Amino acid sequence: MNKMVYFDNAATTFPKPNKVYEYMDRYYRDFGVNAGRSSYKLAREASKLINDTRNKLAGLVNYDKAEKVIFTPSATIAMNQIIDGLTWDEFKTVYVTPFEHNAIMRPLNYVKEKFNIKIEIIPFDPVTFALDVEELNLKFSRDFPDFIFMSHVSNVTGFILPIEDIIEAAEKYNPIITLDCSQSIGLIPIDITKLDIHYLVFAGHKTLYGPFGIGGFIDKSKIKLAEIIKGGTGSDSLNLNMPDTYPAKYEAGSPNILAIAGLYSALDWINELDVKNIRKKEIELTKILINKLKENDQVKLYLPENLSNHVGIVSCNLNQYNPNELGQILDEDFNIAVRTGFHCAPLIHDFLGTTNKGGTLRISLGYFNETEDINYLVNRLEELL
Amino acid sequence: MNKMVYFDNAATTFPKPNKVYEYMDRYYRDFGVNAGRSSYKLAREASKLINDTRNKLAGLVNYDKAEKVIFTPSATIAMNQIIDGLTWDEFKTVYVTPFEHNAIMRPLNYVKEKFNIKIEIIPFDPVTFALDVEELNLKFSRDFPDFIFMSHVSNVTGFILPIEDIIEAAEKYNPIITLDCSQSIGLIPIDITKLDIHYLVFAGHKTLYGPFGIGGFIDKSKIKLAEIIKGGTGSDSLNLNMPDTYPAKYEAGSPNILAIAGLYSALDWINELDVKNIRKKEIELTKILINKLKENDQVKLYLPENLSNHVGIVSCNLNQYNPNELGQILDEDFNIAVRTGFHCAPLIHDFLGTTNKGGTLRISLGYFNETEDINYLVNRLEELL
Repeated sequence: MNKMVYFDNAATTFPKPNKVYEYMDRYYRDFGVNAGRSSYKLAREASKLINDTRNKLAGLVNYDKAEKVIFTPSATIAMNQIIDGLTWDEFKTVYVTPFEHNAIMRPLNYVKEKFNIKIEIIPFDPVTFALDVEELNLKFSRDFPDFIFMSHVSNVTGFILPIEDIIEAAEKYNPIITLDCSQSIGLIPIDITKLDIHYLVFAGHKTLYGPFGIGGFIDKSKIKLAEIIKGGTGSDSLNLNMPDTYPAKYEAGSPNILAIAGLYSALDWINELDVKNIRKKEIELTKILINKLKENDQVKLYLPENLSNHVGIVSCNLNQYNPNELGQILDEDFNIAVRTGFHCAPLIHDFLGTTNKGGTLRISLGYFNETEDINYLVNRLEELL
Repeated sequence: MNKMVYFDNAATTFPKPNKVYEYMDRYYRDFGVNAGRSSYKLAREASKLINDTRNKLAGLVNYDKAEKVIFTPSATIAMNQIIDGLTWDEFKTVYVTPFEHNAIMRPLNYVKEKFNIKIEIIPFDPVTFALDVEELNLKFSRDFPDFIFMSHVSNVTGFILPIEDIIEAAEKYNPIITLDCSQSIGLIPIDITKLDIHYLVFAGHKTLYGPFGIGGFIDKSKIKLAEIIKGGTGSDSLNLNMPDTYPAKYEAGSPNILAIAGLYSALDWINELDVKNIRKKEIELTKILINKLKENDQVKLYLPENLSNHVGIVSCNLNQYNPNELGQILDEDFNIAVRTGFHCAPLIHDFLGTTNKGGTLRISLGYFNETEDINYLVNRLEELL
């Protein structure tokens, strides 16, 4: 059978740049110790790598406070840290978009049940994906937003959300805003100084092209979140409370120097290539994919009307197929890897009307896809129709 | 300068077996996707690896319920999951030993402040490290133990705790018992069926010789812990609650297949070598180290009287030196890596009388140390005295 063609980059980018694999392996063999500032040389080297990686990541979003780059083992844990670290009480209103992932919705639902908060949905047009600013202003005026949690890019549709418009509409209510950049950082230029947000969440293993095991958040707020994970920090050991300093307060336990080395190298790769060029290649590939799929009227695409607000994630359904069944055929007969179903996004299927269809077939591109991969996929889909 | 001699294996074992590095690199290059049971071949392969690793780990402690092996990104997170997942209220009494790590003490201290629980210390003789059973029975009868958290092996002194005696003394009170095996699993044979405990916590990167990024706990209880991290599980996506099944309930977010591959390979290595032989080599090396250090009366050793209850972690102080200063000399002048200070263990320094000394100098051995490393260290220490 032919080599696998991989279209599940929204779950995790694969492969990684070769230098990421090489650097991780070499670094872990040569420097794989437990970091510590006041210890021996190798432990200091490991600490330096962690700080250098913080600096690189802060630089990527134009932030000058590297100590406010908090590393967690995943974006999911980062989101839990933010949500559980905030102060909740009754009568608070949280706004989310229909595009949110369960990494937001499940921790929020827990808060909802515990504190009886209200969760409101920011209104979008289900056909064009346009933000309904008028309706949003009305909703905000009826139920003031205390918190907003929103994705920068939808993991199901690739839609780039109009985050600036939402931030602007919310401005006078001064809500605490968390932006989930799991599907955007490294692919879409972000200048955090120009966004009036409090927290930016990132995943290392998606659009940053790093490995599993590293994610986190950038804290731009003046709030001190309660820490949710407590433990050793290699500092102030006789104190039974966590240190109150950034980033130590939120980083209990041994740092994952293997994953951080991978992220370091991935950030190098992104900087060398430049975010703009990664995005440019992806736009070109996505255009080819969409144009070919559009030729066939049995393919239902779930895309924003304005394709300049879109990355290389294309959800679709084919008339007579259940997406899971179709994904199985693509895998078994053609060695094509796509993801099918609900994609951990609980609200969007009502929005798109895909709940009863079993979700969508999601084709998600990465930098290492080529035009021939897309031709291969589209030709196989045409054979099936 | 000569090659570094590494004696910080209690922080993380280093190096790892060569096959662990090789397998991780190869696996991540070839199979580094997001696991998923009903997806494409590679995602199913990744799921299979995760299940195989659960099976191997369960097998290592003679447990037949692999689904109760819960993976978390670290032992610290596992311990937080257990402590925060239990039900607390006032008047509860928790027993710990003087040997506990901040991965236990800091989350417990938070519970103490929030719920006004009582934390009691299990009595040990500070010279011989013998458990004072009589005093323990008295304490238990005055303040019934509701919970016990204890290390299997002390990360500062290498002392193997008399866990069976503590479990026996507690039996009639039926407390919930958590055993921290971060410094023992893979090194000391454990048969979980013979231990009347509820939770066994493990770290992948210490005595298991795996990488950072993977730890967890084995759940032997009949209690359903509340989950502390919520998020996507790749299943039941439209449900805003976490699935109620093991292990999914406690494993939100993308599994770290890179770290799990490393742990898988490390478990293979342990099984091939056999736990008994790893222990045997360590005992031999430790004996040489202790005997040489004992020759010099300016070296104060912090060891149990009965050395059959001891692994290759040796804490000491040298008369005229502060441990941090001594560690620095060993590093800078001789390229010897030891750890100095309090080692994230907040209670033991009062117990040992090392609080005002700035803690201890800790020499911790691993399978890849050799006799010549120990001779080199001991000779340098003698030069300094």
